[in-house]
Amino acid sequence: MFRSHTCGKLRVENINTEVTLAGWVQTVRKFGSITFVDLRDRYGITQLLFNENLNAELDANPLGREFVIQVKGKVSERSNKNLNIPTGEIEIAVESFSILNKSITPPFTIQDDTDGGDELRMKYRFLDLRRNAVKKNLELRYAVGRSARNYLHENEFMDIETPFLIKSTPEGARDFVVPSRMNAGQFYALPQSPQTFKQLLMVSGYDRYYQIVKCFRDEDLRADRQPEFTQIDCEMTFVEQEDIIQMFEKMIRRIFKDVKNIDYNEAIEKITWEEAMWTYGNDKPDIRFGMKLNNLKFPAHTFPTKVDISATIKSDFAVFNEAETVIAFCVQNCNDYSRKQTDELVEWVKRPQIGMKGLAFIKCNVDGTFKSSIDKFYTEEQLKNIATTCHAVAGDLILILAGAEEKTRKATSDLRMHMGTTLGLRNANDFKLLWVVDFPLFEYAEEDNRWVARHHPFTSPKPSDINTMINNNPKIENAAEYLKHPYANIKANAYDMVLNGNEIGGGSIRIYQKELQQKMFAALGMDDAEQQHKFGFLLGAFEYGAPPHGGIAFGFDRLCSILGGSESIRDFIAFPKNNSGRDVMIDAPSTIDNKQFEELQIKLDFKD
Amino acid sequence: MFRSHTCGKLRVENINTEVTLAGWVQTVRKFGSITFVDLRDRYGITQLLFNENLNAELDANPLGREFVIQVKGKVSERSNKNLNIPTGEIEIAVESFSILNKSITPPFTIQDDTDGGDELRMKYRFLDLRRNAVKKNLELRYAVGRSARNYLHENEFMDIETPFLIKSTPEGARDFVVPSRMNAGQFYALPQSPQTFKQLLMVSGYDRYYQIVKCFRDEDLRADRQPEFTQIDCEMTFVEQEDIIQMFEKMIRRIFKDVKNIDYNEAIEKITWEEAMWTYGNDKPDIRFGMKLNNLKFPAHTFPTKVDISATIKSDFAVFNEAETVIAFCVQNCNDYSRKQTDELVEWVKRPQIGMKGLAFIKCNVDGTFKSSIDKFYTEEQLKNIATTCHAVAGDLILILAGAEEKTRKATSDLRMHMGTTLGLRNANDFKLLWVVDFPLFEYAEEDNRWVARHHPFTSPKPSDINTMINNNPKIENAAEYLKHPYANIKANAYDMVLNGNEIGGGSIRIYQKELQQKMFAALGMDDAEQQHKFGFLLGAFEYGAPPHGGIAFGFDRLCSILGGSESIRDFIAFPKNNSGRDVMIDAPSTIDNKQFEELQIKLDFKD
Repeated sequence: MFRSHTCGKLRVENINTEVTLAGWVQTVRKFGSITFVDLRDRYGITQLLFNENLNAELDANPLGREFVIQVKGKVSERSNKNLNIPTGEIEIAVESFSILNKSITPPFTIQDDTDGGDELRMKYRFLDLRRNAVKKNLELRYAVGRSARNYLHENEFMDIETPFLIKSTPEGARDFVVPSRMNAGQFYALPQSPQTFKQLLMVSGYDRYYQIVKCFRDEDLRADRQPEFTQIDCEMTFVEQEDIIQMFEKMIRRIFKDVKNIDYNEAIEKITWEEAMWTYGNDKPDIRFGMKLNNLKFPAHTFPTKVDISATIKSDFAVFNEAETVIAFCVQNCNDYSRKQTDELVEWVKRPQIGMKGLAFIKCNVDGTFKSSIDKFYTEEQLKNIATTCHAVAGDLILILAGAEEKTRKATSDLRMHMGTTLGLRNANDFKLLWVVDFPLFEYAEEDNRWVARHHPFTSPKPSDINTMINNNPKIENAAEYLKHPYANIKANAYDMVLNGNEIGGGSIRIYQKELQQKMFAALGMDDAEQQHKFGFLLGAFEYGAPPHGGIAFGFDRLCSILGGSESIRDFIAFPKNNSGRDVMIDAPSTIDNKQFEELQIKLDFKD
Repeated sequence: MFRSHTCGKLRVENINTEVTLAGWVQTVRKFGSITFVDLRDRYGITQLLFNENLNAELDANPLGREFVIQVKGKVSERSNKNLNIPTGEIEIAVESFSILNKSITPPFTIQDDTDGGDELRMKYRFLDLRRNAVKKNLELRYAVGRSARNYLHENEFMDIETPFLIKSTPEGARDFVVPSRMNAGQFYALPQSPQTFKQLLMVSGYDRYYQIVKCFRDEDLRADRQPEFTQIDCEMTFVEQEDIIQMFEKMIRRIFKDVKNIDYNEAIEKITWEEAMWTYGNDKPDIRFGMKLNNLKFPAHTFPTKVDISATIKSDFAVFNEAETVIAFCVQNCNDYSRKQTDELVEWVKRPQIGMKGLAFIKCNVDGTFKSSIDKFYTEEQLKNIATTCHAVAGDLILILAGAEEKTRKATSDLRMHMGTTLGLRNANDFKLLWVVDFPLFEYAEEDNRWVARHHPFTSPKPSDINTMINNNPKIENAAEYLKHPYANIKANAYDMVLNGNEIGGGSIRIYQKELQQKMFAALGMDDAEQQHKFGFLLGAFEYGAPPHGGIAFGFDRLCSILGGSESIRDFIAFPKNNSGRDVMIDAPSTIDNKQFEELQIKLDFKD
């Protein structure tokens, strides 16, 4: 060992102890004939005092930032204590030192408020990782993983490794593939998730499985997506939806306690997917704040159970009259927004990312009157009715968007989030969990005029919808009226856990009957041969006593980033890739040798 | 929940409790109007008693092997107790039951002594995994992983995930590669180990890292190798060899205690690589038994420090006279081997896998005389001298092999292991650990007439050998005399942990100085451009204050198999691949779609 103690260890009770420390030079401060050095390692910082006896040696071997040194000396009490750090009451009176390795000047400062830009920090990630801010993130990540493992272990889950070299069965996202040298012309695929394997483990009777495991998706990377990402992947046998929900909300509460020391004792609300879309315009709503949506007008087929109140906004206003959807929400205490402020909001919704044509507002004046951007079309009485519908009171501001259903709902959701952020209602240190349940089983894929699985093809329909699924032909005769197809209303035994407006976990009760699984595959357009080629092993397994089972997978990177109060998952990954899927530090991907092409019996085939 | 208790839970204290169980039908035994069913799940087996009231229902819904059923009933005391199983004092008086899923007849029995052959069991791995024997293996694997994690956590190691999509830098084994769609013409590689990343983490100051992580090597699979395998991968900063050795032998002791309840308190012997080769003919000797080798003759350059005793065997015996190497070892108490038995040993060494031309033996008779296959060439006095050299006493048998050095040494090692097995000295429940240290840094690659790294290119030479390395040209002028090159004698700061004749872990103290790392790469035949292309990031990192560091990686699959008393790692992997790298259950690798080829811009290029 190069050290007797770490740089975070020594305290006043160690005074007069002879110690050896090793670490990195954080700062060098020379005062006349004495020199102070802050020595850093993972565990902390200890101040070193080089007295005049070492002057000559220091001159001959000057210490620079990020040099790695070893020092021997005696712990002594500081005259000028720093009570902000645990070692701040002592320093080391250095008796001898040696430079273990030098450092050239780092391209950015190793500090929380570094001067390094994103690109530079990624290229020199090994230096970026030295910064306390990044180290804290990885420590949090480790703590989250450890907490989850402990909880799952105590609940009889077993960590079982599933293979990484599997079979390509693209259904939804693209697979990364791996050419096989020993089986020329054939390819492995990297798993998008261990889904079918964990289900087989349930068929095999393992009862409770988990894995913290890398998954791979070859998708065009939006901001904050990674081609390789990590899941806390879990599966249980002999369970229904409520069993999974209870087991895993306990896990998240445990993580809050272990990692953040937060007692998250409040009940976790469950809302249906339809209710989430109706109330928040979004299936992963941020419920740290209210501003619930009020659907002044909507297409009947989208929310068939909801009451049509479009009479409320009947007038000559063509924009609302022609719109498929009109949604309003109330922003409390903002009726004093200036013209500049409302103009900014109009510009905000007109940005290409939102793409709306405009924004209407109603100010609820404190005297009970209304001032609105649309008051030439609406009587005071009508404005009052809208305000009442939006639960607005004097002093509030009502924002209204109108247009095509999907776009308008999304825009309203985005605007709600924007207002939440603007008004400081989305504090990174507040945490609010939510379950969203009863998702549609199918989604309509316009390009192919067919159904695709909203979650994945192994998710079961609600028991009450099984007959609808079995007794109807999945074929969509009339594309324009796909919503009238019975499949459009089939609900899935699926659930998402949402934290602060992010989906942190999602899962479902699975299909475990061969016939229903075949029906599902057929509904997605797979004929028997394709079913057999891709999933024959699973259909086969279902013939030998497959038990009811279900599970959930948590996005580990995302969960960590939210707990760490950050928007970026990249900050919580030791060696992340950029938006082109490149690791700029090691410069990967890269070319390979001719010999490798020859052995794999493949060649490049560039398209023009 | 489909159950109130698992099938391993109920005891006499639960008698009269109303319970609901779910599980698999292990056996159905009908006795007149009552039927006994053994219901199985991961946790155990519970006996169910269906009385005559359920006869009609059972007839209408007959239960078969591996059916999944749910039963409600009352716990009652068994009249005929089975004290071999924890639930054997009770049974469930079934009141109602339902079949959750049926099973067709499994292709083999779900029992420890199954009638299924290897191929069938791999194809139906999901059924094979139901067998208790396999389940116990995966439970042991989980226990080993958990024990390692707990130990490492308590010692301040952090689990940090390293990337799977990295850069191809083949050096030794072949990489699996992954074509990049977003960077057409470029490839990722799957990691053969996280070696460079864990070293970067040390450069970044993480001090103690671990990961239980999948690694990938595209090698022709010998028996019991897998293209994907798992390592317990560890790295520490500011350490020397002895620090690593102490830290990780404690980890293995902890695993023995946690997993096998074995107090492995004895000191773990350390021997040098040269001593292992000299004494056992093998760098991973099984020291559960003696039978140490006695080198009657050997090439001087191989063991320059050892005393030449070849005078002992001077005679007219051409075989020994012409042999480069003659090695003998003593098998205790076997002088009564019959002609048939010694003939069988001769045949054994002549098999192509061993490839020797013959085997000499000396029987040390109880009366002090000797009977030998070579006694026409040797005087009684000479035979006695050989016996003394071999520490043989009256009653022992001496076996002697002669021939070319490498082949003879390996054959003698194999024969020693064979005798150990034959004589029952290699009990799977005995465990004997050993460290082998001071490996050569380089190995000679005949085909290229150059040096290759015996461990890997990041392993440091012993400090006393650094000057030899720096001050000599790695070029080998005279291939025939490569052993006289100064590099042949450079020893590595490397160590292997050996358990029962298997290398379970290996590691080294790393190079952390840029110049030495460059010298190492150059010694392996990499010019500056290649060094920069492949490992520029590491050389770069070494410029910014790289600390002394070292580590070790344990073969997790192998460690588990030895602890489980098995020769086969496949038995300890949930979904293993066969010797052609195929998963026969899911039928992977397989062909991919044209669309995938197009997107990846590659095509097949079959060689004739």
